[in-house]
Amino acid sequence: MPRNPLRVWARYWIETAFPLAEAAAALAGEQSSGTFVSVPGETPELKERYGARVEALRALDTVDAPSLPGAGMPGGVAQPRWQRAELDVSWPLDNMGPSLPNLLATVAGNLFELRQFSGLRLLDLALPPDFARANPGPQFGIAGTRRLAGIAQGPLIGTIIKPSVGLSPEATAALAGELAEAGIDFIKDDELQADGPHCPFTQRVDAVMAVLRAHAERTGRLPMYAFNLTGEVDEMRRRHDQVRDAGGTCVMVSLHSIGLTGLLALRRHAQLPIHAHRNGWGLFSRSPHIGVSYVAWQKFWRLAGADQMHVNGLRNKFCEGDESVLASARCCLKPMFDAPEQGCTVMPVFSSGQTVRQAHGTYAALGSADLIHAAGGGLMAHPEGVAAGVHAMRLAWDAAMAGVSLEDQAQRESELRQALEGFSA
Amino acid sequence: MPRNPLRVWARYWIETAFPLAEAAAALAGEQSSGTFVSVPGETPELKERYGARVEALRALDTVDAPSLPGAGMPGGVAQPRWQRAELDVSWPLDNMGPSLPNLLATVAGNLFELRQFSGLRLLDLALPPDFARANPGPQFGIAGTRRLAGIAQGPLIGTIIKPSVGLSPEATAALAGELAEAGIDFIKDDELQADGPHCPFTQRVDAVMAVLRAHAERTGRLPMYAFNLTGEVDEMRRRHDQVRDAGGTCVMVSLHSIGLTGLLALRRHAQLPIHAHRNGWGLFSRSPHIGVSYVAWQKFWRLAGADQMHVNGLRNKFCEGDESVLASARCCLKPMFDAPEQGCTVMPVFSSGQTVRQAHGTYAALGSADLIHAAGGGLMAHPEGVAAGVHAMRLAWDAAMAGVSLEDQAQRESELRQALEGFSA
Repeated sequence: MPRNPLRVWARYWIETAFPLAEAAAALAGEQSSGTFVSVPGETPELKERYGARVEALRALDTVDAPSLPGAGMPGGVAQPRWQRAELDVSWPLDNMGPSLPNLLATVAGNLFELRQFSGLRLLDLALPPDFARANPGPQFGIAGTRRLAGIAQGPLIGTIIKPSVGLSPEATAALAGELAEAGIDFIKDDELQADGPHCPFTQRVDAVMAVLRAHAERTGRLPMYAFNLTGEVDEMRRRHDQVRDAGGTCVMVSLHSIGLTGLLALRRHAQLPIHAHRNGWGLFSRSPHIGVSYVAWQKFWRLAGADQMHVNGLRNKFCEGDESVLASARCCLKPMFDAPEQGCTVMPVFSSGQTVRQAHGTYAALGSADLIHAAGGGLMAHPEGVAAGVHAMRLAWDAAMAGVSLEDQAQRESELRQALEGFSA
Repeated sequence: MPRNPLRVWARYWIETAFPLAEAAAALAGEQSSGTFVSVPGETPELKERYGARVEALRALDTVDAPSLPGAGMPGGVAQPRWQRAELDVSWPLDNMGPSLPNLLATVAGNLFELRQFSGLRLLDLALPPDFARANPGPQFGIAGTRRLAGIAQGPLIGTIIKPSVGLSPEATAALAGELAEAGIDFIKDDELQADGPHCPFTQRVDAVMAVLRAHAERTGRLPMYAFNLTGEVDEMRRRHDQVRDAGGTCVMVSLHSIGLTGLLALRRHAQLPIHAHRNGWGLFSRSPHIGVSYVAWQKFWRLAGADQMHVNGLRNKFCEGDESVLASARCCLKPMFDAPEQGCTVMPVFSSGQTVRQAHGTYAALGSADLIHAAGGGLMAHPEGVAAGVHAMRLAWDAAMAGVSLEDQAQRESELRQALEGFSA
């Protein structure tokens, strides 16, 4: 989509029984100067200046039944067809200014309920650079994450504390210690574990960081641990400070749980990278007929200050297909604006059912190892133990990045061979 | 649903090709102690203590194709059927504590993407009273809103500044002045109008409140004006203070734009009622196969501190049917907890295509006039002007509350008669 310094562009997939131009105009009107009935103050001059514009409308296929219930039909049509289309709409930046919360109300507000549509998805966004100036964006991004993790190249090999919920602070710390011994680069709390009474945040940070600091003193290596500080704004700021003071190098949030203003508030306070978990994302992505694409959605969170963003993984255990996963990851690595300091690129986090078998495919499709590759069973279940599991994953990535096949590398390296035997899929 | 002081209950609508109990167990496991592969730390004791429990499973209809793409099927079944069901799951409060953001990650987190489900909606929630103690809840609610608006009984007759966006601060103030002269009880900014460069929040508040204060000095009546302060947390707090200092009596936010922690942060700071706009709600409500019901969803926002919540209106211009609108409104008026001080009841806001013709139906269905009835064209387009429009709406409500039919009242009252003639639908 074209970038215009004075206009916000959005692309939608729509489905409607109304003439396309009429449905598009309804959306543009409703989301800018228009109302259902015309009112005295909506002068032609005001409409010209503040009205949203239909910039493009590309007809796609038609279907003989509406995909979502509740939509209207034009009167007097005996056998309606529901036309699908891609619609580009633009708004003057002057309507909302470079405010992310107000951008959201404009491009993804009351339009999902419009009777003109039996399907509507927000596909993409192109924003004026004013958004990069007004919003904090990622503070650490890829380079900062690498620096703090002490990993100059290749992916950060990561894992998630499991069981998801139920471990005490001491048990969490013991597990983190084992993972550190095994040579892991990155550990994160599960999104279900933030500050439950059985594992209070404060005690968890104290216990985990004591173990990790001791490990670092012994070995010179401090794994990055993303502490899930999801909570109210003041809580999150306080918890961030505790992590920082304890020598920690990363904090984690559940994006949907805290919302845009929560992330903005944390980011404006933060001195550590923010690991952004997208649980709840299925709400926006599962239906082909309603929702917001990750391509559009992640732009909000990058501008608000996420440094690392979840994108699921190839051949994952959830519903999402590989193409969608890769489109999301490519987005994270693609600058949002032309000026180098305004790229807002973030580190994609691959996870869910990951093993040594996904390294080559991920690298080939992405052309980059600027990512976190998180695995659970894929590391832990190695017959020789977690250290061998982590090492095997690194061997797989080394091979992928060197253009050596997984099989050839496995012939040379027994840990990788054993991992491959263990994970047949 | 039963209220349990130590467990969170959630009800889902699900659709699955797997045996029901197996699919339900997958959801409960994934959202608590479980992982895709079993791990050493997930002991039977831990599972017993922290595992989510399947409390009830009621089979509904079956369909011969999955409603959403991406779901899995059990192996070896020649002609699968997709079974729908209502599923109740409970979690120990100890898993997440009474934290709304972390509750959200538990009951509406990674479960929408589970391969077991070709459909999943969160229908309802029952929470331990600890949530009422730990969260602020509505500060003003119905009684506080009535007190500040000076309306002891009957609905607050309200309207929305239109055009939605594009008016200058002065033009907004002039319109607010006209509406005040017309005897309106409640005015709100459009959700598209917060702090756009053409109508900065600060100037709008100054201009509008100067006019409304002058009106109040003259007449003794100050309409409640909900200023849309949607923005970052510190901005919202600052804007709230400006409204308070200018003598204003209400602030407004777009819930999805600010998120849970934004509302919590504003509420903990606020000395004015918070008007909660739900734009973007269609994302959760449009599909029958994925989403969150308003019945469940509004409980988060009530606990977080909304005082007035949008519920759409009868025979509205959007896609939502009347039954859904009324279920939402009834919810707002229904106490969430048994203790009187923990009811968290809020004032429902009816709007969208509203005229004098919806007063009787709304009152009859709801059995209450504790609401804001907002209309645009339904007031403005009265042939005798806005004051007659507002008066006609009040006459319709007086009749509804007195058990007098709309037609009988219209025979006696010319403003109502004219309004009825104007709005035939």
